[in-house]
Amino acid sequence: METFHIVPEPQHNALVAAAYRHRGFHADEADEGARFCAEATRHGIRTHNGIKALHLDHLFGSGSQGCVPGAQIEERPTRFAATKIWNARKKLGQSTAYRAMAEAMRLADQYGVGTVSVDNAFHYLWGGGYVMAAAEKGYIAYTNCTAALAEVVPFGGKFPTLGTNPHSWGFPTTAAVGFPIVIDWATSVVAMGRVQQLKREGKSLPPLAAVDRDGRPTTDPAAVNALLPFGAHKGYGLSLINELVAGFIGGSLPTIRNRWEQAAGDKGTCCFFFQVIHPEAISGGAFARGRTQSENIQAVIRDVLGHGNEGCMLPGQLEAEWAKKCAAAGGLLFSTAEIEAFNEVAAECGEPRWDIASFKGFTS
Amino acid sequence: METFHIVPEPQHNALVAAAYRHRGFHADEADEGARFCAEATRHGIRTHNGIKALHLDHLFGSGSQGCVPGAQIEERPTRFAATKIWNARKKLGQSTAYRAMAEAMRLADQYGVGTVSVDNAFHYLWGGGYVMAAAEKGYIAYTNCTAALAEVVPFGGKFPTLGTNPHSWGFPTTAAVGFPIVIDWATSVVAMGRVQQLKREGKSLPPLAAVDRDGRPTTDPAAVNALLPFGAHKGYGLSLINELVAGFIGGSLPTIRNRWEQAAGDKGTCCFFFQVIHPEAISGGAFARGRTQSENIQAVIRDVLGHGNEGCMLPGQLEAEWAKKCAAAGGLLFSTAEIEAFNEVAAECGEPRWDIASFKGFTS
Repeated sequence: METFHIVPEPQHNALVAAAYRHRGFHADEADEGARFCAEATRHGIRTHNGIKALHLDHLFGSGSQGCVPGAQIEERPTRFAATKIWNARKKLGQSTAYRAMAEAMRLADQYGVGTVSVDNAFHYLWGGGYVMAAAEKGYIAYTNCTAALAEVVPFGGKFPTLGTNPHSWGFPTTAAVGFPIVIDWATSVVAMGRVQQLKREGKSLPPLAAVDRDGRPTTDPAAVNALLPFGAHKGYGLSLINELVAGFIGGSLPTIRNRWEQAAGDKGTCCFFFQVIHPEAISGGAFARGRTQSENIQAVIRDVLGHGNEGCMLPGQLEAEWAKKCAAAGGLLFSTAEIEAFNEVAAECGEPRWDIASFKGFTS
Repeated sequence: METFHIVPEPQHNALVAAAYRHRGFHADEADEGARFCAEATRHGIRTHNGIKALHLDHLFGSGSQGCVPGAQIEERPTRFAATKIWNARKKLGQSTAYRAMAEAMRLADQYGVGTVSVDNAFHYLWGGGYVMAAAEKGYIAYTNCTAALAEVVPFGGKFPTLGTNPHSWGFPTTAAVGFPIVIDWATSVVAMGRVQQLKREGKSLPPLAAVDRDGRPTTDPAAVNALLPFGAHKGYGLSLINELVAGFIGGSLPTIRNRWEQAAGDKGTCCFFFQVIHPEAISGGAFARGRTQSENIQAVIRDVLGHGNEGCMLPGQLEAEWAKKCAAAGGLLFSTAEIEAFNEVAAECGEPRWDIASFKGFTS
């Protein structure tokens, strides 16, 4: 059981947007940044809420050389109709990602499938949010990106040369199961933040999650030098995909990414890849027992989660359940510590503090 | 060290094609089936060589209700330009897959990206072979399919409702590293064939690879009732993707797939999904230090496999090394037991036996 304070979303968005504007971001970027943080919080993604987003922007973004407030995206020339290539010029990641996904949906409407490849990107935080939004609009969506820092060793290696490199897939299954199925995870077993948390708490890592300086697997958070991909060579392959796609787009060496002192004369930026497929563009139309496409998806999922598997979860289910809680509560749910962190944000940008006593409580 | 016999490829292809023709397949299908088996053998994929392909065709294909020799693919109507939808009508999987990948490459040439979705498909055996062939031609290729039988439990479940559902990605990296990087694996930890092999050999399974009838993890091959996805919820999500994509295309319940007595009045066929991206369609053109796109990929891979990671492998490397051995040997490499199995195939279709003494030896 955990107790939360219910923060009205407009109040949350106003503060987060003000903080972005205070750092020089334009009003549209600030609004997109705030909207994204609200979505993350609404779906229980506490690792990418407003506090974390603003902290990461400070560490790697506008507070460093990773992100340029007000940057204008440049569309690069291409001879292909269904694919776009953008130079994001280090624009805010959330703004770039929302716009790229919208463009990929437009391409899918026209061609059945569309891709938007983004060079010189800044961190977009939670890839699941973008594919979820597209899936809620009825599309099959996918994105991957190169994570900020190389923290993961290749399978069999000892030096971190890969990012945690997440993949995110979203499927338009709201009619079938009540929410979009969203498959979204990093290709490392755990994040470095989790290692630091376990170290603070004096706990051990799961096996085969990290290695020490000699590349030997360790469960001691204090001995960790780098992370391991999940699933041995399989997760390694999935992580490598992001580096390869980025390499084709325009990304440079993963070990100098976001390490600006090493990237001088080279490139230290991230890349994003977005893809959207219109579900009608893959429909053969011949579903068994006269089902519609959506009824067919429902039948398939019932079969997968039937036969004694009724206790299994669908990817995206926890996020959907959290969003239901927020809807019932009538606002975004934050812990006392999180409210205090938002008040530090308010102090930073000269906005009024949140009065914690003004928020209704919520126990989950 | 293992000793092989060097079988000239034309001799291999003639026998495999004759076996397919003997089962009623048309000459073009038989040739495509044989070509695919030669590619699998050339790349060391012994689980999908000619013997296995013909055995699977007997079990699930033309010997059952899964595959129809001479079937003509029907192109379904679509309003989208960059996506095709095919009703394969249970045509030989290799023939369907080669043709679908060729069509996806044509779409990518024109639109930058193209997909071919295939309903009523038969098993295509080794997805890596199709993406490798496309990558060798210069494309970024992807395919997934629904495996023949539901043998895998969802994460946290106990009844097998998912196929081993493989994913295959191929990248045009021959100029950069000497071969296409091919990331290709099933979403189960092991295949059911491996469980049976370990049972015969009196060996144990790796941990968390399979469950017993009550859904409890077991390492005893004799107690195995179903397989587990790799990487817990992550591999489960990857397996679910294939069922969802198939469900959108036209596939029905995974638990009745290829179980024709249960699929009466429903659908028991597999689905394939193919996607090709032209590498120029994702190129921002701004590679660091004046590199070309291919030089950039080379630099990225050197970085990933540098810094003490020089002993790591690239996905597709083992396959490329095996192909080099075959090229040096001047033929396909088969064990004595495999030659004997081919002679059973020869007896089945009335072709002359292979004289094992006529083949040169090769030790690897």
